[in-house]
Amino acid sequence: MSLGAALEYARAHEAAAIRELREFVRFPTVSSQPQHAADIRRCAAWLARRLHKAGLDDVRIVRTPRHPLVYAEWLRRPGAPTVLIYGHYDVQPADPLDEWTAPPFAPVIRGDDLYGRGACDDKGQMFIHVQAMEACLRTARALPVNVKCIFEGEEEIGSPDLEPLIERHRRALRADVALISDTRMLAKNRPALSCSERGALSMELEVSGPKHDLHSGNFGGAVHNPLQALCEMVASLYDRRGRIAIPGFYARVRHFSPPVRAAIRRTGPGDPGFLREAQVSRGWGERGYNLYERTTLRPALSLSGIAGGYSGPGVKGIIPARAVAKLNFRLAADQEPREIEALVRRHLARITPPAVRSQVRIVSRASPAVIDPRHPAMRAAALAFRKGFGRVPVFTRSGGTIPAVSLFQKLLGIPTVLMGFALPESRIHAPNERFHLPNFRRGIATSLWFLHLLGKDAPWLATARASLGGK
Amino acid sequence: MSLGAALEYARAHEAAAIRELREFVRFPTVSSQPQHAADIRRCAAWLARRLHKAGLDDVRIVRTPRHPLVYAEWLRRPGAPTVLIYGHYDVQPADPLDEWTAPPFAPVIRGDDLYGRGACDDKGQMFIHVQAMEACLRTARALPVNVKCIFEGEEEIGSPDLEPLIERHRRALRADVALISDTRMLAKNRPALSCSERGALSMELEVSGPKHDLHSGNFGGAVHNPLQALCEMVASLYDRRGRIAIPGFYARVRHFSPPVRAAIRRTGPGDPGFLREAQVSRGWGERGYNLYERTTLRPALSLSGIAGGYSGPGVKGIIPARAVAKLNFRLAADQEPREIEALVRRHLARITPPAVRSQVRIVSRASPAVIDPRHPAMRAAALAFRKGFGRVPVFTRSGGTIPAVSLFQKLLGIPTVLMGFALPESRIHAPNERFHLPNFRRGIATSLWFLHLLGKDAPWLATARASLGGK
Repeated sequence: MSLGAALEYARAHEAAAIRELREFVRFPTVSSQPQHAADIRRCAAWLARRLHKAGLDDVRIVRTPRHPLVYAEWLRRPGAPTVLIYGHYDVQPADPLDEWTAPPFAPVIRGDDLYGRGACDDKGQMFIHVQAMEACLRTARALPVNVKCIFEGEEEIGSPDLEPLIERHRRALRADVALISDTRMLAKNRPALSCSERGALSMELEVSGPKHDLHSGNFGGAVHNPLQALCEMVASLYDRRGRIAIPGFYARVRHFSPPVRAAIRRTGPGDPGFLREAQVSRGWGERGYNLYERTTLRPALSLSGIAGGYSGPGVKGIIPARAVAKLNFRLAADQEPREIEALVRRHLARITPPAVRSQVRIVSRASPAVIDPRHPAMRAAALAFRKGFGRVPVFTRSGGTIPAVSLFQKLLGIPTVLMGFALPESRIHAPNERFHLPNFRRGIATSLWFLHLLGKDAPWLATARASLGGK
Repeated sequence: MSLGAALEYARAHEAAAIRELREFVRFPTVSSQPQHAADIRRCAAWLARRLHKAGLDDVRIVRTPRHPLVYAEWLRRPGAPTVLIYGHYDVQPADPLDEWTAPPFAPVIRGDDLYGRGACDDKGQMFIHVQAMEACLRTARALPVNVKCIFEGEEEIGSPDLEPLIERHRRALRADVALISDTRMLAKNRPALSCSERGALSMELEVSGPKHDLHSGNFGGAVHNPLQALCEMVASLYDRRGRIAIPGFYARVRHFSPPVRAAIRRTGPGDPGFLREAQVSRGWGERGYNLYERTTLRPALSLSGIAGGYSGPGVKGIIPARAVAKLNFRLAADQEPREIEALVRRHLARITPPAVRSQVRIVSRASPAVIDPRHPAMRAAALAFRKGFGRVPVFTRSGGTIPAVSLFQKLLGIPTVLMGFALPESRIHAPNERFHLPNFRRGIATSLWFLHLLGKDAPWLATARASLGGK
């Protein structure tokens, strides 16, 4: 295996790779919006062709009840470790559309950045590994390790079909370690390996009252307004100390000792840096924790949207018949989504005012995940980052959620290397999302180094298997 | 003047009148939505042609900074009283569109009802008087009184241009009494004359935080969520006793003595009847008042919409950058919109959490209005209802707001006869708005009777002018 040749190949084909990435971003693969189902199918087909062209074997489009997953593998190196590479080609909704400076699905390059919904989360990042594998396969007709690829189209809706799919194909998906690039670096020259992810529980809370909208002149003051009731319910979910006011909510949240917390704080941004990243002037939240701890060690509730009543220009004189809030809980280590769901359901039913009705619909659930930084694959990843970026990565914690991480842990018994190439300023989930193209180049080199280090350092495998209790 | 001939003419031309009304309803004259500006202009032109065809003089389309007003007059009976007939041809937004059983601007007749946005509020009702005037002018080439008509296109956005327009044309608009059909009967066979209207103050409250939406995983728990802050602010605007929790808000609300309140309660529906009308199982609001009192004697705040964050299918993992609530206050007798506005602004500024910013935009203001039921024109209206509907009307109070009523009182010094033909079940402002066509027929007869009674009973005029302090 010549790593040098592969690195050279990747450098020489950089312009073509960026052209392809732009093609990839052009598909409006918004998984939460049913009108994009066909776009998602077309994108899956495009991706499958691309994986086939890269030289991978057994490329297939796997149907699910919602959006297809694209699978590919290369297993021609018996005895070598197997890496499960995961990514997602679906994206967040692009709205608010009027805040984009260029259309979200007509990607443009400005300066060093490629702008477009999904450019960074996660098309740009997952495509890094496709380019790296191709570079190996074109130059050496082989990969340094065995590889199984899962690129799904449902991550942004909480990966609802991933768990049954992995369960069904548990044997076929056996691997030694998973690799995901869908997290952030601390800054352009500060790579990071995330050692934990928060879990998530997303739900819609609907409050309904009158059968239809009522005239606010004729009925205002005598009929409870479901939108007002919804606001009252939601407002009560946080107490004055910035804690979630649901009985039992914090019961299982993992406690960290002061020295451990101090060590964790040192790996993340301080409050001033955090505020700069968020571009806000002051922080908010649970007392007794700094901002980085609040987003990584502690749970949170984000109200991500409300739809109720009239939202057009001016004001409409109505009491709306119903209103819906979208609640996005982020769960800390040791919180279990189903247990939290039960607590939340019970509490919401209890605080529903008597003159209205409420209903909860679960959108997605994901467990929190923790990765041991001493795992040999993490050490290989750290070295790969040093080769690709010239800097040793920091072991950080992430406040985000990739459902696959906890599923791989639970169902396949393997840890995930979270080799993220996004930046704090990448605006993922927001308008004007962008991918820093130098990270695309360096990412491909880092991926190549990682695969080669894993392949070379075969003994790690036995150790890892032993330390994980065997698989 | 032959009332009989006019009544006969109206009966004979009923089918044509309904056909014309359907044409009228077909214009999507949503005044709050800029995209309908041209529809509104087209409708104004149609209405002007219709008034001209009816035989009215000096028909003109009067421009305003927003939507035009249509004026017409007939002043060929010197010495007779002058009636200022007001109506509005603009309508509320039609959404939520998916709850309409037929498209809102493709009116259909089912049973005795004409369905369509504006069929009742106010196109159907104002058209009654156009038909009545035409019946007189075709059969007698004259009206029994002098008439000035103002049909505006901005009522549903709070009549923002009516006040300056009346001020500018104060002399030209001089009249003895105003006539508006834009209120409700108590039931199909229970006509009503409203003696009071609540005022209104509509505003948008915007809360903003981060420069752009933030990823709820990376920032959730450490950056204040403007939508959450908005909910907290709005939730705090009502206290546990169902009262608006803004200091000073109730300071000027008119106090009614227990016997007066008892008399008022008798004119409106009891709580069971009120709940049937609203189609809800239980009431809500300020303790110590029944439901009818809460909507007529007492102020209210209706949250008529919230727009914030993501409102599409599923959940988006964001902290939205901003959120807007639409607040619709209804004001009780003696509350002044500008004074209340100052109280509300001060209070909202005070309760804005420190980590976000808030801003208030006023959409419209209207003063409450009171009409003396002993005014001779009210007596004529009562008799006209008895002739048109076979029942003496009840003097009621309305919880709604027609800005014109207080403006006519303040600027022209005249009372308004609120001769409403809507029904509690007409679903005004809601999906599937409908106009009960028997009320259209009976309304035309009532209007004819009213105009004839006013013209015959000339001495009332002197009395009324004296009692009002002369004009």
